[in-house]
Amino acid sequence: MPQHVVIIGAVALGPKVGCRFKRLEPESKVTMIDQTDLISYGGCGIPYFVSGDISSPDELQSTSFHMLRDKQFFKEAKDIDVITKKRALQIQRDKKVVVLQDLGAGDREELAYDQLVIATGSTPTVPQIQGRDLQGVYVVASLDDAIKIRNDVATGKVGNAVIIGAGAIGLEMAEAMTDLWGIETTVVEITNQILPGLVSKNLATMAQRHMEENGINFLLSQEVLRLEGEGRVERVITKYETLKADMVILATGVKPNDQLAREAGLAVDRQGGILVDEHLRTSDPSIYAGGDCVLIKNLITGKPSYFPSGSLANRQGRVIGTNLAGGQARFEGAVGTFIIKLFDISVGSVGLSLAKAKQEGFDALNTLVVQFDRAHFYPEKDLMYLELTIEKRSGRVLGMQGLGSKGDGLLARLSAVAPILKYSPSVADIGNLELPYSPPFSAAMDILNALGNTAENLLEGRNRVVDPDEFVRWWNQRGNGETFFLDCRGWGNAQPFVEKYPDHWISIPQDELRQRITEVPRDKKIALICNTGVRSYEAQITLDQIGIKDTYNLQGGMAAVKKLGEEI
Amino acid sequence: MPQHVVIIGAVALGPKVGCRFKRLEPESKVTMIDQTDLISYGGCGIPYFVSGDISSPDELQSTSFHMLRDKQFFKEAKDIDVITKKRALQIQRDKKVVVLQDLGAGDREELAYDQLVIATGSTPTVPQIQGRDLQGVYVVASLDDAIKIRNDVATGKVGNAVIIGAGAIGLEMAEAMTDLWGIETTVVEITNQILPGLVSKNLATMAQRHMEENGINFLLSQEVLRLEGEGRVERVITKYETLKADMVILATGVKPNDQLAREAGLAVDRQGGILVDEHLRTSDPSIYAGGDCVLIKNLITGKPSYFPSGSLANRQGRVIGTNLAGGQARFEGAVGTFIIKLFDISVGSVGLSLAKAKQEGFDALNTLVVQFDRAHFYPEKDLMYLELTIEKRSGRVLGMQGLGSKGDGLLARLSAVAPILKYSPSVADIGNLELPYSPPFSAAMDILNALGNTAENLLEGRNRVVDPDEFVRWWNQRGNGETFFLDCRGWGNAQPFVEKYPDHWISIPQDELRQRITEVPRDKKIALICNTGVRSYEAQITLDQIGIKDTYNLQGGMAAVKKLGEEI
Repeated sequence: MPQHVVIIGAVALGPKVGCRFKRLEPESKVTMIDQTDLISYGGCGIPYFVSGDISSPDELQSTSFHMLRDKQFFKEAKDIDVITKKRALQIQRDKKVVVLQDLGAGDREELAYDQLVIATGSTPTVPQIQGRDLQGVYVVASLDDAIKIRNDVATGKVGNAVIIGAGAIGLEMAEAMTDLWGIETTVVEITNQILPGLVSKNLATMAQRHMEENGINFLLSQEVLRLEGEGRVERVITKYETLKADMVILATGVKPNDQLAREAGLAVDRQGGILVDEHLRTSDPSIYAGGDCVLIKNLITGKPSYFPSGSLANRQGRVIGTNLAGGQARFEGAVGTFIIKLFDISVGSVGLSLAKAKQEGFDALNTLVVQFDRAHFYPEKDLMYLELTIEKRSGRVLGMQGLGSKGDGLLARLSAVAPILKYSPSVADIGNLELPYSPPFSAAMDILNALGNTAENLLEGRNRVVDPDEFVRWWNQRGNGETFFLDCRGWGNAQPFVEKYPDHWISIPQDELRQRITEVPRDKKIALICNTGVRSYEAQITLDQIGIKDTYNLQGGMAAVKKLGEEI
Repeated sequence: MPQHVVIIGAVALGPKVGCRFKRLEPESKVTMIDQTDLISYGGCGIPYFVSGDISSPDELQSTSFHMLRDKQFFKEAKDIDVITKKRALQIQRDKKVVVLQDLGAGDREELAYDQLVIATGSTPTVPQIQGRDLQGVYVVASLDDAIKIRNDVATGKVGNAVIIGAGAIGLEMAEAMTDLWGIETTVVEITNQILPGLVSKNLATMAQRHMEENGINFLLSQEVLRLEGEGRVERVITKYETLKADMVILATGVKPNDQLAREAGLAVDRQGGILVDEHLRTSDPSIYAGGDCVLIKNLITGKPSYFPSGSLANRQGRVIGTNLAGGQARFEGAVGTFIIKLFDISVGSVGLSLAKAKQEGFDALNTLVVQFDRAHFYPEKDLMYLELTIEKRSGRVLGMQGLGSKGDGLLARLSAVAPILKYSPSVADIGNLELPYSPPFSAAMDILNALGNTAENLLEGRNRVVDPDEFVRWWNQRGNGETFFLDCRGWGNAQPFVEKYPDHWISIPQDELRQRITEVPRDKKIALICNTGVRSYEAQITLDQIGIKDTYNLQGGMAAVKKLGEEI
């Protein structure tokens, strides 16, 4: 029997729900409501619109075949009614109506539904700082905001920009400001690293160095106290500094828009987020919800978690569309993934970072592997940096993070791990992971396999490591004489260091170690050094064999130290 | 207790076994035997050495840190003894000795082992054709062969080359001949497509067109009868043609070297291939085997299968190394993967192709999706072509094949599916697959998700399709008046076709279809056409609704037809 489905919210999830449902039940009626008339746009494209890579906001609102997804498009191509510039004020579940308010005239009306979908998305969490309402202070919440930001930069109003928050959106906006517009841009972050919680400090520092080389300034571990200016923002005052700023972008995260659901008495998490079952149904069987306003199951921790993502929203939309038509489609949850392009590198994560794992109560560790992304004999190749997060006790793989060159090589490794995380893979599963191989794409023993194997050696106590940042601390404290720095590379690589630091840097190539074992001291901690950590691991085993065991293999080798921007 | 491990074969698997085992048991002794002294090289790099991309064979034999993996390297860096230029003639299992013959002097000796590893690899299956022994006729079995081929092309001896066999190695060698050396190259294939059994005829034709555009000739469905010449090869005689040839490369597949194992009474498959358990142990508990000489479990069919691959060999090598040292490492099998770069495109597969699935007794079908590899609004992007192989009854996903541009985008999609195939994923699992997303890397609804969703619609009978090659047949027979060709794109796209074929090609944009429904005939089969198959699917649902059901959505749309090289 034909029914009336009402969808509150017309970006990402909402349109996907409507289109899927109408394909299954063409006789039923769908009404989609939105507060603005900039609907159904690709919000993740905003930084590329701000940068100028995408010339018009219409492109973000168009289909792949260049049709503008506006009211008329939804009516003619999809037979979906769209009501814009009205806000859903209230859901009266007993009467099955939504109360709407016209944002222009202010009139109220009631819209009856058979089934309702809440697709209200998220709102930026704006820090309550003084000056937040000055002109030139923006959040990145909608296409509307993006258009204002782009207008400001394109009309030359902005010489200096400050981004508050070094998460993915903050960094993308920083690149957008710098790359095409040449704006002097500073990112201020309250924690001690960029991409906090998403990747390790080591990977974060590597990414930060790359952005610095591309002209972006960073202020880490700094709280913003207030914004100052006359009408328009002019300065950002942090605890330690005053920054010139003609524009400020607040990119400090988002929170679910769950108020409508909460007020209607639907089950909502105490910390925020509408609660749904695996069919994406709320506590009212006539009401579904999905996208940035809900919590879904974290498939690693098993707990309801918040994963705001346009990609998940689209997939959830299809599931809701199916279920509105009487289907039993399931959305079982997510492990959490992200990838970001930053100038000429890419950085990404699947599952839990070490910091997140610890926060979730896991006794976890991580391991770093540096290896070429292709066969080492193939002419075009780049080093890739991958870290695996592992639960110590069980050897269960909880997540992986990485940094690579501009292309899709990192995407490939992340994409191989994301889909299996829900099966609680072991490090051996990663070591044996079967991936398509040929020299232009990968190594016979791909970096992913090497990562699993290295993690196994670590867990079994065969590979004792020192992280690159800790190694740098040892090096800086070399004057205390506690550490012996042993370079296991060929003489050609070691020579410049030996000549520069004759008292501290000793060269014994790994293949000569057995013969020159008497040169190794037995009374000091030994840092074993090679290019990426392979030969130093081999050296460690040779030293173990003769009872020299206070040795630490520099994870990721000199390649990682160099990528951290450390001059040794 | 220290033991003696003997490894027969020193390429890929053998060295990996030896190195892993020595790291676990440094006190034990390892002896590795090989017939040549070109050991431990990257065989998959041969085409790049022949092409000149890699300048010296040493590069294929070196570590990533440029050390030549020769006898001396294994002794000094790994403490492994290597015996070269001797052949293992016999395994005497009762005495635990291997009988070796010196390939120079002819002397025989016995080498005692505690545990033995058979890593004898594979041999090309050479067709028994006349002229096979002429000069200039090669197989690609070893680095030795590669050096001879490269010498011939580099010294200008080769104006015309013929490759027999259009599998992965044949195509890589064809590109190597053409790309840098400008040799007029023809690939002769006995079946009616390139990459037979690996990808569908549609994807194969797309790849073939691309190679033809790069100057390579193809003769399909042609058997080679004989090779002719005086001393050196001059001509290739097929059933229908005579081809000039200064060089012939036989690339018609490989077979496992299992004779030694067979003669020693170990369990060997009737069709060839040493049988091993999941610890890679043969029927003799003191003898392991792995790499190209064994069969392993196909994780999709459950049957012992042959997967010759340098990548699997490396991973198996580590498992054997662990087990030789008393470990219980498992190698559970493989789903089968491949990827190949052909000039500016990449082609690959994971699991079963439709042809392989049918051969294995599955009642299977496949579906084609064409979509941009990145967000459609992102400036740099390319169309990607993916096909999913599905078991009809269960909806189980058996495999995926694809074609993409030069980069790693295809690798990423294949890598996401390969690791989950052993869990028997459903099409919904592919539709909901969680992958890292941002516009420079993927679409919010990635092509992989779209592929799963399209397959679901197909299985549920909601999406009735026609393959691009079948569509071309309908078009070529348009004179019979059986088919109505309905273009669902905007007028701009449809116009040139309508003007060229006013009697056959009709334009009704999908968003006007509801209004213009009377223009659609009810007495003909209807082919629905758009760019990639999305709007034509939408049109099909609209037509279904009013009872016009003899309609077929052109899978992959005009993008696929164009990629097949068909001029319409």
